[in-house]
Amino acid sequence: MASVDVGIGLLGYGTVGSSVNRMLVESVDEIERATGHRLRVVRALVRDPAKERPFPAGDGVLTTDFEAFRDDPDIQVVAEVMGGLSPAGDYVRALLGAGKPVVSANKQLIARDGAELFAAASAAGVQLRFEASVCAAIPVVKVLRESLVVSNVHRVLGIVNGTTNFMLSSMERGGSYADALAEAQALGYAEADPTDDVSGADAAAKMAILATVAFGSRVRFEDVECRGIEELEPVHVNAAAQLGMVIKLVGIATLLDGAVDVRVQPALVERSHPLAAVDGAFNAVMLQGDAIREITLEGPGAGGVETASAVVADLVSVVGTAGTGFLQNDACWRELPRLPSSEWRSPFYVHLEVSDRPGVLAHAASRLAAHDVSIAQLVQRLEDGAAAIELVLHRAAFGEVSAALREIAAFPEVLRPPFVLPVIAERGL
Amino acid sequence: MASVDVGIGLLGYGTVGSSVNRMLVESVDEIERATGHRLRVVRALVRDPAKERPFPAGDGVLTTDFEAFRDDPDIQVVAEVMGGLSPAGDYVRALLGAGKPVVSANKQLIARDGAELFAAASAAGVQLRFEASVCAAIPVVKVLRESLVVSNVHRVLGIVNGTTNFMLSSMERGGSYADALAEAQALGYAEADPTDDVSGADAAAKMAILATVAFGSRVRFEDVECRGIEELEPVHVNAAAQLGMVIKLVGIATLLDGAVDVRVQPALVERSHPLAAVDGAFNAVMLQGDAIREITLEGPGAGGVETASAVVADLVSVVGTAGTGFLQNDACWRELPRLPSSEWRSPFYVHLEVSDRPGVLAHAASRLAAHDVSIAQLVQRLEDGAAAIELVLHRAAFGEVSAALREIAAFPEVLRPPFVLPVIAERGL
Repeated sequence: MASVDVGIGLLGYGTVGSSVNRMLVESVDEIERATGHRLRVVRALVRDPAKERPFPAGDGVLTTDFEAFRDDPDIQVVAEVMGGLSPAGDYVRALLGAGKPVVSANKQLIARDGAELFAAASAAGVQLRFEASVCAAIPVVKVLRESLVVSNVHRVLGIVNGTTNFMLSSMERGGSYADALAEAQALGYAEADPTDDVSGADAAAKMAILATVAFGSRVRFEDVECRGIEELEPVHVNAAAQLGMVIKLVGIATLLDGAVDVRVQPALVERSHPLAAVDGAFNAVMLQGDAIREITLEGPGAGGVETASAVVADLVSVVGTAGTGFLQNDACWRELPRLPSSEWRSPFYVHLEVSDRPGVLAHAASRLAAHDVSIAQLVQRLEDGAAAIELVLHRAAFGEVSAALREIAAFPEVLRPPFVLPVIAERGL
Repeated sequence: MASVDVGIGLLGYGTVGSSVNRMLVESVDEIERATGHRLRVVRALVRDPAKERPFPAGDGVLTTDFEAFRDDPDIQVVAEVMGGLSPAGDYVRALLGAGKPVVSANKQLIARDGAELFAAASAAGVQLRFEASVCAAIPVVKVLRESLVVSNVHRVLGIVNGTTNFMLSSMERGGSYADALAEAQALGYAEADPTDDVSGADAAAKMAILATVAFGSRVRFEDVECRGIEELEPVHVNAAAQLGMVIKLVGIATLLDGAVDVRVQPALVERSHPLAAVDGAFNAVMLQGDAIREITLEGPGAGGVETASAVVADLVSVVGTAGTGFLQNDACWRELPRLPSSEWRSPFYVHLEVSDRPGVLAHAASRLAAHDVSIAQLVQRLEDGAAAIELVLHRAAFGEVSAALREIAAFPEVLRPPFVLPVIAERGL
């Protein structure tokens, strides 16, 4: 019999934790071939050891005693799969401090307390990996850190929330926001309280992590400008279709002139753009950089087994590179300023509702022109004496577009505040 | 000044080699942050040192003397970026034998001589990496070997040749094979002699490498069943469009009941399938496995800078993991038999041209039914007393479909041999 030589400790033993244990058991030979080591779960910290588990832990593995877990010399690497900020954060800090490498599946923890956690890891000289915290099985963190180390990635586009992507796919087929939410809830894609998904907060945490890794500068959850999908109406979805586009909740991280902008919001995506084809509960991340042009990774962004697969990959990488200095460091090494929101540039879509009087369109166009914003496409529809105007604007600074729209909103003919979304175009509009 | 501590030797200093040198120079700090080492090109083996280079090598770096290169103690890792089977193969063998780790961008070499090269690497205890040999900047080898180590990947679908994908995109917009080839040649996507691309040989070498890594069993270039795009006619492209599909040159590697089937051929891809959206000269690889469902990686599959980016990533990985035992081994660890071609299962598309006489369709359908092959879709078009019949067949064994088609071909009413392609369906037809 080969000897067990790397003991794994799990913080949490729910759906993900059970799957991690099952994979380590079933793939022990594959992992030994890749790393030269046999991995085995020796301890799992849980609240209730009596609970039924999908894949039972071995005798004596479950424990409720964190101090004993922390001080257990048999635990050489820890996987944090319990979720939540507290007590997960305290546990991870204590374990790093005790010299144990940690891999975490916890996006909120990494996005909010990353700076402090990586400092703790660095002080102790141990690794903290977090592939599973973003987009489950899609290996975007590894690709950014290892494959694209010299690619100067300057833009990350992501569909990183499956719930909202499912809902938007459903609205595209013709349905209200409420219908789409009810369907997502019925199918288990959305929680009873869907706020974290539909507000964009879940996507914002993931984009904060991705931007940090891509640009090497800390982006915290609070640094992400975030707008959810709650205000979307069928009229916007239909207008997008008319313009040959679809609406997606998109995370956009941009590195421009040494400053960083990270945002999550609904955007119109041209049908020919690779992100337009990402359907249902799938996630996709597009990385644009000097050497690679663009690389897109697509796959299931959630799920217990999918998340566990990323946790196991991180465990394998920690064990495989222990002591080498390779990627033992924080991905973040510089402090870049935030790009003022007004300087962020994009093509934009604007939906205007105006009373149908001569000259309104000319007046609106002249306000845009005064701010150096030019119109790429315009569709006008008449409805009972009112007109809906759909505009696609060429790439412009957000500040200029906002200023023009404020002036347009002040026209007496404008019936509702203008509705504006960025456009993701295959080639710069 | 920090000291240079890892000397890199380049075999070849053309487009890719120059780009590798430039990236190592420009990203020396990024690489030091990731690995703890500073990398520098100390020697490059070339035929003609006097030739102009896009990024000049330093003084005394270019050499024509292979023995001196091999024995140079300053060269700690080698990147083979010269291409071709000979002398590249002899050089790589000699360098591995001399204890130098090698990263190679040479798909023909890895696909044909992989077994021998990995044995040489293993005997010498050094690494042989080959990310750049498949799909340039798309990090599919790393993802398969490191991120999906426990995912039991059982199917790899790939659009791995940009030239043919560009040509098929062009035929889709309405053009003959000859027009598409001329356009690809004019734009520099196809060589003057396009045989390697249009025959599928280039794609077959890449699929052999991907299947080897995915299934852990050696698949050689000669093991790949290969059919090119030369026989495609506008009638097939139009029929595909009518059926809601597009034609792509697809690599399909399947692990079924412990046997392996790897093939490259044109296939009909449903429009809703992620591979259908891969346009122009881009490549994409879809990995299907137990834990991950499916992960798709898409990006530029060729180009000097893109290939260099993968070479540098491999250099970084070799330096970062040297001496750990992590992935120092051949990706191939078992010997699986080839699945008999007749047992390979897929949905299929069949194009039949028949004289328009009563009963032909019923007769054809009865031959298919006799082989347990059922029809999913049928479109019949009449043209001057002849009929074109487009059939989509539900998933069936290739042997049964072939047998039925042989019987159908023997009907006097059948004007041309039936034309059959597999179908890539989002959900099994």
